[in-house]
Amino acid sequence: MICFEDIVIGECMTSSAIVVDRDELVDFAERWDPLPIHVNGEVAASRGGPTAPGVFILALKQRLIHELPEHAVIASFGYDEVRFHHPLRPGDEVRLRFEYVDTRRSSSKPDRGIVTVRLSLVRNEDEVVMSHLDTILVRRRFPLG
Amino acid sequence: MICFEDIVIGECMTSSAIVVDRDELVDFAERWDPLPIHVNGEVAASRGGPTAPGVFILALKQRLIHELPEHAVIASFGYDEVRFHHPLRPGDEVRLRFEYVDTRRSSSKPDRGIVTVRLSLVRNEDEVVMSHLDTILVRRRFPLG
Repeated sequence: MICFEDIVIGECMTSSAIVVDRDELVDFAERWDPLPIHVNGEVAASRGGPTAPGVFILALKQRLIHELPEHAVIASFGYDEVRFHHPLRPGDEVRLRFEYVDTRRSSSKPDRGIVTVRLSLVRNEDEVVMSHLDTILVRRRFPLG
Repeated sequence: MICFEDIVIGECMTSSAIVVDRDELVDFAERWDPLPIHVNGEVAASRGGPTAPGVFILALKQRLIHELPEHAVIASFGYDEVRFHHPLRPGDEVRLRFEYVDTRRSSSKPDRGIVTVRLSLVRNEDEVVMSHLDTILVRRRFPLG
């Protein structure tokens, strides 16, 4: 379990790769975001096949988080700067990159700290498909006295 | 189809209500974010039942967007200030509130404008469960000369 003291700004972890499954993408889109560009049909076919809804891309990212070492998270503040840089399509291979960008002590509670991470879904070797910042509250192993 | 000229800052639209389905929530969590607090089991049972993953809340919001009038969207820049204010649980009844918060002309392209909206998932009458800003590029009906 990764605690606040273990975190070093600039350090980075990467998940293994997964391939975007066409049926899973289209089933998800039909249920949650049935725009013609996301589901089977003429519109998607004329544009090289369906593209993933943004929320499907966020769900893939969430699945990949479970591959990385666990943090002693108390709470999450939310996401900032969520950006969809490129369309994602069935057959694409993606990894999750997890980078620590900031840490600070809680001003009121000695048992925790605030950590900002950048999560990036990366296609092939280096193309960022989606990125966002995530700010989490992480427990200290040794509370400040 | 709502074009740039139709948009008035401060105007607000609200979807009909949907009830969070327990099986849909748990199936989603098992597939995308299988934390013990989100799936069936002792941990969730000891806390009053499973709570929804953040990405499930975003998916619900996306489903409800399809109930509202369509905009002439060219592209989306992404989300900002995504905040999960309260846990969401099976049986909760939620609506989507869609509010225009800013508009500006594109400095380079006369056929479009930039629109910022606040999307809020509201439980019961007035409790905001999740909110975020969404910035979209919307076509003008009459391009500037």
